[in-house]
Amino acid sequence: MDLVEKLKNDVKEIEDWIIQIRRKIHENPELSYKEYSTSKLVAETLRKLGIEVEEGVGLPTAVVGKIRGNKPGKTVALRADMDALPVEETSDVEFKSKVKGVMHACGHDTHVAMLLGGAYLLVKNKDLISGEIRLIFQPAEEDGGLGGAKPMIEAGVMNGVDYVFGIHISSSYPSGVFATRKGPIMATPDAFKIVVHGKGGHGSAPHETIDPIFISLQIANAIYGITARQIDPVQPFVISITTIHSGTKDNIIPDDAEMQGTIRSLDENVRSKAKDYMRRIVSSICGIYGATCEVKFMEDVYPITVNNPEVTDEVMKILSSISTVVETEPVLGAEDFSRFLQKAPGMYFFLGTRNEKKGCIYPNHSSKFCVDEDVLKLGALAHALLAIKFSNK
Amino acid sequence: MDLVEKLKNDVKEIEDWIIQIRRKIHENPELSYKEYSTSKLVAETLRKLGIEVEEGVGLPTAVVGKIRGNKPGKTVALRADMDALPVEETSDVEFKSKVKGVMHACGHDTHVAMLLGGAYLLVKNKDLISGEIRLIFQPAEEDGGLGGAKPMIEAGVMNGVDYVFGIHISSSYPSGVFATRKGPIMATPDAFKIVVHGKGGHGSAPHETIDPIFISLQIANAIYGITARQIDPVQPFVISITTIHSGTKDNIIPDDAEMQGTIRSLDENVRSKAKDYMRRIVSSICGIYGATCEVKFMEDVYPITVNNPEVTDEVMKILSSISTVVETEPVLGAEDFSRFLQKAPGMYFFLGTRNEKKGCIYPNHSSKFCVDEDVLKLGALAHALLAIKFSNK
Amino acid sequence: MDLVEKLKNDVKEIEDWIIQIRRKIHENPELSYKEYSTSKLVAETLRKLGIEVEEGVGLPTAVVGKIRGNKPGKTVALRADMDALPVEETSDVEFKSKVKGVMHACGHDTHVAMLLGGAYLLVKNKDLISGEIRLIFQPAEEDGGLGGAKPMIEAGVMNGVDYVFGIHISSSYPSGVFATRKGPIMATPDAFKIVVHGKGGHGSAPHETIDPIFISLQIANAIYGITARQIDPVQPFVISITTIHSGTKDNIIPDDAEMQGTIRSLDENVRSKAKDYMRRIVSSICGIYGATCEVKFMEDVYPITVNNPEVTDEVMKILSSISTVVETEPVLGAEDFSRFLQKAPGMYFFLGTRNEKKGCIYPNHSSKFCVDEDVLKLGALAHALLAIKFSNK
Amino acid sequence: MDLVEKLKNDVKEIEDWIIQIRRKIHENPELSYKEYSTSKLVAETLRKLGIEVEEGVGLPTAVVGKIRGNKPGKTVALRADMDALPVEETSDVEFKSKVKGVMHACGHDTHVAMLLGGAYLLVKNKDLISGEIRLIFQPAEEDGGLGGAKPMIEAGVMNGVDYVFGIHISSSYPSGVFATRKGPIMATPDAFKIVVHGKGGHGSAPHETIDPIFISLQIANAIYGITARQIDPVQPFVISITTIHSGTKDNIIPDDAEMQGTIRSLDENVRSKAKDYMRRIVSSICGIYGATCEVKFMEDVYPITVNNPEVTDEVMKILSSISTVVETEPVLGAEDFSRFLQKAPGMYFFLGTRNEKKGCIYPNHSSKFCVDEDVLKLGALAHALLAIKFSNK
Repeated sequence: MDLVEKLKNDVKEIEDWIIQIRRKIHENPELSYKEYSTSKLVAETLRKLGIEVEEGVGLPTAVVGKIRGNKPGKTVALRADMDALPVEETSDVEFKSKVKGVMHACGHDTHVAMLLGGAYLLVKNKDLISGEIRLIFQPAEEDGGLGGAKPMIEAGVMNGVDYVFGIHISSSYPSGVFATRKGPIMATPDAFKIVVHGKGGHGSAPHETIDPIFISLQIANAIYGITARQIDPVQPFVISITTIHSGTKDNIIPDDAEMQGTIRSLDENVRSKAKDYMRRIVSSICGIYGATCEVKFMEDVYPITVNNPEVTDEVMKILSSISTVVETEPVLGAEDFSRFLQKAPGMYFFLGTRNEKKGCIYPNHSSKFCVDEDVLKLGALAHALLAIKFSNK
Repeated sequence: MDLVEKLKNDVKEIEDWIIQIRRKIHENPELSYKEYSTSKLVAETLRKLGIEVEEGVGLPTAVVGKIRGNKPGKTVALRADMDALPVEETSDVEFKSKVKGVMHACGHDTHVAMLLGGAYLLVKNKDLISGEIRLIFQPAEEDGGLGGAKPMIEAGVMNGVDYVFGIHISSSYPSGVFATRKGPIMATPDAFKIVVHGKGGHGSAPHETIDPIFISLQIANAIYGITARQIDPVQPFVISITTIHSGTKDNIIPDDAEMQGTIRSLDENVRSKAKDYMRRIVSSICGIYGATCEVKFMEDVYPITVNNPEVTDEVMKILSSISTVVETEPVLGAEDFSRFLQKAPGMYFFLGTRNEKKGCIYPNHSSKFCVDEDVLKLGALAHALLAIKFSNK
Repeated sequence: MDLVEKLKNDVKEIEDWIIQIRRKIHENPELSYKEYSTSKLVAETLRKLGIEVEEGVGLPTAVVGKIRGNKPGKTVALRADMDALPVEETSDVEFKSKVKGVMHACGHDTHVAMLLGGAYLLVKNKDLISGEIRLIFQPAEEDGGLGGAKPMIEAGVMNGVDYVFGIHISSSYPSGVFATRKGPIMATPDAFKIVVHGKGGHGSAPHETIDPIFISLQIANAIYGITARQIDPVQPFVISITTIHSGTKDNIIPDDAEMQGTIRSLDENVRSKAKDYMRRIVSSICGIYGATCEVKFMEDVYPITVNNPEVTDEVMKILSSISTVVETEPVLGAEDFSRFLQKAPGMYFFLGTRNEKKGCIYPNHSSKFCVDEDVLKLGALAHALLAIKFSNK
Repeated sequence: MDLVEKLKNDVKEIEDWIIQIRRKIHENPELSYKEYSTSKLVAETLRKLGIEVEEGVGLPTAVVGKIRGNKPGKTVALRADMDALPVEETSDVEFKSKVKGVMHACGHDTHVAMLLGGAYLLVKNKDLISGEIRLIFQPAEEDGGLGGAKPMIEAGVMNGVDYVFGIHISSSYPSGVFATRKGPIMATPDAFKIVVHGKGGHGSAPHETIDPIFISLQIANAIYGITARQIDPVQPFVISITTIHSGTKDNIIPDDAEMQGTIRSLDENVRSKAKDYMRRIVSSICGIYGATCEVKFMEDVYPITVNNPEVTDEVMKILSSISTVVETEPVLGAEDFSRFLQKAPGMYFFLGTRNEKKGCIYPNHSSKFCVDEDVLKLGALAHALLAIKFSNK
């Protein structure tokens, strides 16, 4: 029996076990950095499988499991993120979140369950492994600021890793379909803050003021011009001004106006070109009117998630042995799996869960987000298959 | 001795008395509708002058004094507003405000003192009066919403009034200079609120949202086009967008965006044309993108302050007997003295207090606003002179 | 019989004569600098009245008549412009223009006829004149560039003039009503040209170009912001972008874009503030994108037309003896009578010709513009009356 | 010897012959629909090679050659376009264009030479062909309006064709590199014209006009918002406003304003969404101000060029046997080879000619565009190889 057949049979035995783990985590969602019970469940489950476990790797709730093969080989890391979102669950699944205002609305509960399933398969087929399989259970992917990957990497989680793989469940693709692409697959999220310092005054006498709202209008228009005119239109790219706040009263022109937003790009040149234009636009337009300004970009944001082309070609062939694999467009969301890919070649890929019949049609982050649990076994299978294949390269 | 000489002499006697009243009020500023101690001081002072006093006219802190001439004649109303502003005084006068965060930054303390000075002169020259002089001490001019004039009028303060006059101290004109104009002199302040209801979503996928901030940009640009293209450029007119609020997080496009501001005009046709355009702009631009919207104009705002042309011609001649009188440009601030002028012909005029030597250079509403007290006697004199002249018409 | 009664009777005798002169000129309209037959008619008519005539004063078609009083007195200049407009007349008067594409659409034919009528009255009442009455028949007011006034002034036409008056017929006011105002009455027309030099390229690859049209959009939006935010909203002021030209083909982004327009203001500070902002806006916004630019303002344009306040007060009283006189809003059109007013105190005023019953309802410069000829005698009368009164001051 | 080796040897023999043909055509460039001498040269050359020739296929200058295999098989079409551009050549090659203002600035001369080279190879290896190889020499690709492909198709050129291939030389890729991609590779060029009909008037009185330039500003801003906010930012997409014309004089607001430009997209849904928004934007914004408008999209423009995914996979493997093959980003230029791909599966691909050492660095359509002639044999080889492989499928 070939490897795929073997693993397919094995995963059938534990399908329900995987689902139950997922539901338990779904009922007890925990926000970024507070994944205490989830990480405890992971550590216990790994230990029950006889896997070497290290807790608190870089972060209190970070867990790493290690399965060593009987012969030398490559070190393959498999990653699952664990945190939930500040969303009030409105879907009516029986295992609905029991925590007010917190929900696994992005499927990280399924990621943990699928990787524990993969761990089970790997332990059961330990003889097929070479080198080391490193199971990374990462907190705080949704944090969007520092993020959980960075501290784990600083704590050495990627030392000696030859390949790294990560799966994300997504309602953008049909149930059971794997979707990925070579090169950049997810964007870097350059959060920005623009503050215009004008000089307030009476609403009836704008000429005696430096009107920060009017200036912000000109800046915002020019910023949207960056997308429409300055960036290569073939490049996936977007700037969104997502907050604007200024003023208190209808007859008082305020002193200051503040805008925040995000620049999403998949290319470092495009990224720096956009930021340069933004700085020039803000300072030049403020200069016209004698206003002063601040333009701040959040530092050390998640990098661009770049799939290694050769690895991706190979993985797509491997995965096509267990399901349909499609080449997807890039996504302008962001993922700190990108930091792992900066340390070792690997691939980040989506596992589709969209199933009209089962009502699994809502986008990730929606309060009605729901998952076709039939796909979970495929995730576990993919983890195990890649671990075995690449550890033996 | 002619009337002017007589009154000039009389006012010299009480100049210091007027100044002390002003300083007492300045030290104890009271916000709109809470002018308790100021109105008590007014009522007591009027009674000491033997003047018939009515308190609580339309508002608890409103005070009206009546001086009746010995022979029939016209009823002339003289008005002074009493409220202070939510401003922290930073000027270093010895009689600085003793109330944290409250200051007579618009000179209403001087208005009360000057009208009490005028009352003194009228009592002293009672024989020269015909008909009735009605002294209106009005709360809450700065309120900007309902305002104190309206309830006083509804309580009958303007019943039977033939002429009405009001003075406002202003650092826009040189000390002692009277400034006014025929026809519209101050604007109506149409406060507006625009709410754009879009559909929020992820900052990286604007195409899946109805972006209320982007829509508000287009609306704001078109609104400023009303001033630049749709309103007669000879007409004093301004629209100011003074607040804009939308969004909470750099990567989330919000559902809604809210803007507030003010339309200032001196002409009813211009006013309704501007409001029509604003409604059309907001609904049309929202319509392009499938957003819904609300456009609200505050109701029953202060009317346009319109000086009666004939009365103004006559008053300018009278005042030129006691000081320099200039014809001023209209001002796009607002005043609820306009409501009194809707009930009887009259005139609203400024008394200059700008004096570089004395450091009286800061604009009204400034935390450093200060008054050249030498002009106060002129205000009292003007009140008395107009009362006598017009009561005898 | 007083002066006004005398002149009223005299002008009745020549009313028809004035109307016939007007109609003759109306049938033979001549464009700026080409008023050959009109100026010939003027010279002949003056000579027939025994008036001393000088032709070619500064311009070939300029004519000056001089009537000297018997006793010393003031020199009073009265001015009428003579040129027509490049407009195809579509009104159906029997004395319609006989010249294709040229029409007296702004009433300069009536100005000539009224001043010749005034000359007749002055000759007839020569004894009432002191000093000298100087009749200025000026070419090329409509030229908008150099204009006819400047060369005539350089040729000495205003040497020794004490007062100068000019009438303009206008359908903005009711028939027979005089309208004027103290101070600035007409604007200075700062014509501007903005050229943005970008770098063209393919319409599908804007990022490889410096798109002059996009840049011009930002500039134009900011320019309209000058009106809405930077200039005192009480000041009559307008900027109009009246031409924009760029590009030849739908798939080629051009190199350059050119805009023209006009700034109209009644105040030198406002004027220079607007021009400064325009320069800063164009250079700053071009600077953002690496474009270069030119901002040119036409030189030596017609100045602001400023009526002398004292003279205006006096003239309004004089004119009220022959008709209704109203104080008008300023007009943002331009007039090179302004150059005469820079040389001597005087007044420029409108004579209304709007008459619904007679169908005289079209605005000046309209191809259907028509005049209520009953008012022409009033214009002649006004010229004579002012000449007599001010020459005797 | 395998097929590739055989063809490589054969093409060496005729490399110079191919280059000479190219240079002859380069010296005698002919604009769209006027490729008389080029098509004569093609017909003669084909006949000399013993190939069945048909001239005037749908267009006078269109030429089709047919090479029939000895055994049944597939019909494979190979296409080369023939027209030059209205560009004055400024490159200093010895075989520079001899026709003023006309130049082969896009390499269509090389396309003809490479396809004639391919024809030579196919005739020489006729025994390896099955079915039919149809050589399409197409006029007027650069025309951008109707284009040459459409009439040839209507004349039956694609009847019975099983596969179709087209090569385009491009300085965007290194010399000798083949570049292509599955799915959409070039855009559909929706040329648009927007006319705003307002109501002109005097530059000083915009409120009496419906200002078409101001309205066009609002429209243009909103149009660029389509790119920035309404279209999926991952989608290659651009709108360029490339011409704007309005107005004649600095003091006259014109009646009308006209804009032209192009929408480039690779997806029919995106394309129709953009056009819908454009219509809504123009009509809604015109509606605000009472202007009327026209929005016209050029009809029957070149479709999206869509490479058949399966054929592309196969071709990329075949071509990798003779040179480097890279997967390229889509290009937002347009090509009427797209019409051939609507009739039969096939692939359009680029052949790189960028060679710094040889100074071949200028973009297509540049007056300095020049080609590294060493690559021409590769193009001939590719034509022959694909014809043989796919005719035998």
